[in-house]
Amino acid sequence: MNVGIFGTGIVGQTIGTRLVELGHNVKLGSRSAVNEKARAWAKRAGRLASQGTFADTAKFGEVLFNCVSGMGTLSALDFASVADLNNKVLIDVANPLDYTRGSPPTLTVSNTDSLAEQIQRIHPLIRVVKALNTMNVDVMVYPERVHGPHDVFICGNDMDAKATVTMILMEWFRWDSVIDLGDITNARGMEMALPLWLSLQKKLGTNIFNFHVAR
Amino acid sequence: MNVGIFGTGIVGQTIGTRLVELGHNVKLGSRSAVNEKARAWAKRAGRLASQGTFADTAKFGEVLFNCVSGMGTLSALDFASVADLNNKVLIDVANPLDYTRGSPPTLTVSNTDSLAEQIQRIHPLIRVVKALNTMNVDVMVYPERVHGPHDVFICGNDMDAKATVTMILMEWFRWDSVIDLGDITNARGMEMALPLWLSLQKKLGTNIFNFHVAR
Repeated sequence: MNVGIFGTGIVGQTIGTRLVELGHNVKLGSRSAVNEKARAWAKRAGRLASQGTFADTAKFGEVLFNCVSGMGTLSALDFASVADLNNKVLIDVANPLDYTRGSPPTLTVSNTDSLAEQIQRIHPLIRVVKALNTMNVDVMVYPERVHGPHDVFICGNDMDAKATVTMILMEWFRWDSVIDLGDITNARGMEMALPLWLSLQKKLGTNIFNFHVAR
Repeated sequence: MNVGIFGTGIVGQTIGTRLVELGHNVKLGSRSAVNEKARAWAKRAGRLASQGTFADTAKFGEVLFNCVSGMGTLSALDFASVADLNNKVLIDVANPLDYTRGSPPTLTVSNTDSLAEQIQRIHPLIRVVKALNTMNVDVMVYPERVHGPHDVFICGNDMDAKATVTMILMEWFRWDSVIDLGDITNARGMEMALPLWLSLQKKLGTNIFNFHVAR
């Protein structure tokens, strides 16, 4: 499949590399056509990998990942053509983290709204699915690195889009458990899990852990 | 031990009943000296159970539980004498839930502050430990009702107070895993886990589940 990834940071690169390994064509998108970081990534990742602008990336991808920082997400989407975004599945991996007050970060939006809802409101025809924002990127694409059962949460308004994302998570990334929380408003809870994740990261001294819902 | 519980709702009653079963003297506190709900509870729970005002409860308890609603917590503490509160361990079980906009609730405080921090700021000499706010009350006192490993988080500024709470959780309630997240600011993450918990409750159709940190 042709996959477009918005964002050239560690999250976009790691997901991109994994998708290329799995045989997919991946374009990593950034604000400029010539992004040295993205170019170096594409060179390393091999012939299925390419890089371009956000506009190129939206046009290229049959499925899109949002791996831009939370604060950069909405403006990044503005660089793409609405025609190239509409009706596409956008997997929103980002967290609305605000580091302007230092670390640990706060959230730019929470409680009564979420980044995923903001995207969905501004782009009502994108099929936004919040997913993969509650764990480290290595766990996202290599869930087997965490021992015992653990879960990935998804939410969104479009059932077909969630079926596609579930397929990607289970068949491509080999997640055993995908929990569909319901409509896009459930992204509030998913994004608000980040402060607890950050406390745990500090406490455990590792990124390789994840939430599991024990029953 | 003499345990004072602020709050006569289902959380206070369930914790109180369990503590009485374990052989502790428990006083359930409310705004008025004559609270029919608390009186009925004390009658059911037996000779180790009693009820009284918040002031009586603070005086009575060697350890205190805050099981008042989040929005009622700060004013409830105002009814107690500062001398009866200071230096005591207060286990803050409450979540700052706001149902005034309907259900699901939002949080009255989040992201840059938490209910536990508000209590600690207003009462700097209370030894506040946030605990048990991320699961249903039956799971709080009967953790064995959830299958497989799962965790209870605590945080607070006083190490001795956290040792006392860990003892209560592990020896009294039989928790296998208590994760100390650090100082009281980590209560933000613990309280912000509630929206995700509420999404899961709706999705799973049960209260009997809990978070586990898989590694």
